[in-house]
Amino acid sequence: MAAAEASVPEDAAPQQAKQDINPWSVSGEVDEDGKVKAIDYRKLIDEFGTSQIDDALLTRFEKATGQKPHRFMRRGIFFSHRDMHAILDRYEKNEPFFIYTGRGPSSDSMHIGHTQVFDFVKWLQDVFDAPLIVMLTDDEKYLFSEKRTVDEVIGYSKQNCKDIIAAGFDMKKTFIFSDFEYVGGAFYKNIVRFAKRVNFNTAKAVFGFDGSSNIGKIHFASIQGATAFAGSFPHIFGADEAKTAKIPCLIPCAIDQDPYFRLTRDCAAGLKYAKPSLIHMRFLDALQGPGSKMSASDDTSAIFLNDSAKAIKTKINKYAFSGGQESVEEHREKGGNADVDVSYQYLQFFMEDDAELKRIEEEYNSGRMLTSELKAICVEHLQKYVAEFQERRAKATDDVVAQFMAVRPLEWKGNPKQKKLLKEQQIAAKKAEKEAAKKAAADAA
Amino acid sequence: MAAAEASVPEDAAPQQAKQDINPWSVSGEVDEDGKVKAIDYRKLIDEFGTSQIDDALLTRFEKATGQKPHRFMRRGIFFSHRDMHAILDRYEKNEPFFIYTGRGPSSDSMHIGHTQVFDFVKWLQDVFDAPLIVMLTDDEKYLFSEKRTVDEVIGYSKQNCKDIIAAGFDMKKTFIFSDFEYVGGAFYKNIVRFAKRVNFNTAKAVFGFDGSSNIGKIHFASIQGATAFAGSFPHIFGADEAKTAKIPCLIPCAIDQDPYFRLTRDCAAGLKYAKPSLIHMRFLDALQGPGSKMSASDDTSAIFLNDSAKAIKTKINKYAFSGGQESVEEHREKGGNADVDVSYQYLQFFMEDDAELKRIEEEYNSGRMLTSELKAICVEHLQKYVAEFQERRAKATDDVVAQFMAVRPLEWKGNPKQKKLLKEQQIAAKKAEKEAAKKAAADAA
Repeated sequence: MAAAEASVPEDAAPQQAKQDINPWSVSGEVDEDGKVKAIDYRKLIDEFGTSQIDDALLTRFEKATGQKPHRFMRRGIFFSHRDMHAILDRYEKNEPFFIYTGRGPSSDSMHIGHTQVFDFVKWLQDVFDAPLIVMLTDDEKYLFSEKRTVDEVIGYSKQNCKDIIAAGFDMKKTFIFSDFEYVGGAFYKNIVRFAKRVNFNTAKAVFGFDGSSNIGKIHFASIQGATAFAGSFPHIFGADEAKTAKIPCLIPCAIDQDPYFRLTRDCAAGLKYAKPSLIHMRFLDALQGPGSKMSASDDTSAIFLNDSAKAIKTKINKYAFSGGQESVEEHREKGGNADVDVSYQYLQFFMEDDAELKRIEEEYNSGRMLTSELKAICVEHLQKYVAEFQERRAKATDDVVAQFMAVRPLEWKGNPKQKKLLKEQQIAAKKAEKEAAKKAAADAA
Repeated sequence: MAAAEASVPEDAAPQQAKQDINPWSVSGEVDEDGKVKAIDYRKLIDEFGTSQIDDALLTRFEKATGQKPHRFMRRGIFFSHRDMHAILDRYEKNEPFFIYTGRGPSSDSMHIGHTQVFDFVKWLQDVFDAPLIVMLTDDEKYLFSEKRTVDEVIGYSKQNCKDIIAAGFDMKKTFIFSDFEYVGGAFYKNIVRFAKRVNFNTAKAVFGFDGSSNIGKIHFASIQGATAFAGSFPHIFGADEAKTAKIPCLIPCAIDQDPYFRLTRDCAAGLKYAKPSLIHMRFLDALQGPGSKMSASDDTSAIFLNDSAKAIKTKINKYAFSGGQESVEEHREKGGNADVDVSYQYLQFFMEDDAELKRIEEEYNSGRMLTSELKAICVEHLQKYVAEFQERRAKATDDVVAQFMAVRPLEWKGNPKQKKLLKEQQIAAKKAEKEAAKKAAADAA
């Protein structure tokens, strides 16, 4: 799991190249001048063979859940999906499913690029009232790193777990696990079943492995894949494999994780397990603008979750790429370009109010709003976001982590609307029955 | 783990070919007439780069343990080793080590070819008073099979565990586990550490994998290998990795398993873990003679552990390849050939008395002993072996299996001779101290 984290080596000299999105590195197209372009997400939908999240899906989502789609869905931040309709079908029928997401714990320092998926997942968990499983792929981070030790990555798991908990998940319906802790038992059975169905040629084609790839990397898809199967969690879904085989999951993740789940959907078919559905998120660009990458090792590239309000203000004012003109006069005359402006882009992520966002875009593009004014709005939103995060993060103690990571049953309701409806139908049916009986009695009398 | 079980497809037409010994199939050289020759074990020592178990090692073994080497060692049945001296060094210094062996549970029916390693290991456990770990590679058998389900191989594990327990292991110092049950925790950490150190090219070179091999097979060496590391068993050796890293194991196994442990020794070096030592066993030929294979699916190929006394007699008399001549007259005149006679070979495995075995060989080769007489001695030994096995097997209930497979501490003494010596030295030292004090007091008076 990389969850919206781009990890291109920073010292790699840019050379003309096509865009390349895979679970370990994300890079936009590099033009002949060595300039990295923004990622073309529309093209990814075609390449990966996924479906766009369109108005029809948004309408259906709202109808099924009674909830206005999340701003990330409304604004194309979650832009693509596989079989989202199948999950809505189950939700409408009040049939169980779960939400699965994850993170590769590569360091202690998480930035705002890391938390977006989790914020969305928290919202989704509330909307669906579904059990959530969060995987921390510490084994993957060890296998794919040069220097990290097993104990180091396990340490990152615990710290990252606190950041994840800070998204506000409901403990009763959330299980967070680290691979190093949880691999075994029913999960291991599904891992082996998965591994038997994927050969080296396939792994090579999907992930680009070669003869020098270690056998842990080659095998890792089995672990990330087997987490999509409800039978891997008997403490949540029971030990009856005939029943768990029918419970699918919905995987909200960054688009770079799709190759894992493409493979998982094939394996699911072979194993006669329910296929997972997916919704894919785009990446949050670094402060340096479209085509740049946030990096945990470069403080000026991102807003970190432990940044002070002052640091946030300084970073946005100093580093956030601006779509404005060279001078105030020129800006007033020609207007700014919100499309490439990092502050505006961040507001797309963090500002809830659609009308206000639209107004800001118009004001900025017309030149009536200056870059400094736009940055001030952005700073305000980021400061609020980070402060609230830090408040929740402070409550995620080691004890709370242990509770979220304990192997235990979860409690959830499923579709409360559906249950209410069912109850209403039952009451109506009983009422009708009684009235029919009354009428029959009256007729007889 | 295949543990002395040859598993060549029976319908494979013999074609001229070199001998080929690997963990999944064992075949002797096939000559131009399509005849399979006996396996050339001397050649294997050169090919695999192992050492022969020679007289010097046997002498040292006897000196260190105070025990006459097992008949399998005296007769070249355990014929090869890697670093056996390192284990004797530790034994002499009373430093901890463990014994590790295993079995791939491929079916419910075990034959006498399967139990020889375990009989030897039982003896070795008594001699060394060392903890023993027995791995049941049910995951491997699933990954390498065409049709078996996970539940089937787990079932075989439980049944095979009873057959293994019937070798007479001391429960207090024996831990038997199935991969499907035990993979996880500290063991999984070592599996991942192992997997990171082996790349596809190496796995391909050692095991002959190709692009069509499933990623579970490719990865499996990590599981068989990580079992050789004491740190994988914190319930036995403690959780202090600095200490467990120094505890090696001795792996008695069939020679076909050597490729796994060659790789394991390389990984151990990279991980700064103690390298495992090995002693290698030759195979027990099928009833059809040198070059033939025992097969669980061919009742006439082997003596099975559930065969009746009558069935054993019939099988030996009817199927056991004879080194005798065509007629009694010719036999009396030319003598038999014990080298190719299956009954004689089986006596090498089952008869303890060296002098008697020698006498039988001479009598048979001289023609004084007839094939029928030789077979009668063999039948007697096999009937006794199988009857005693069945008696012990009957006591291996599900409850006993659960106890052997429980994750728990073990109890063992190590080198009792060494401990006795240490105690004697301590007593002698105290005595000397006292006498010195007495003398000093007398001198002072």
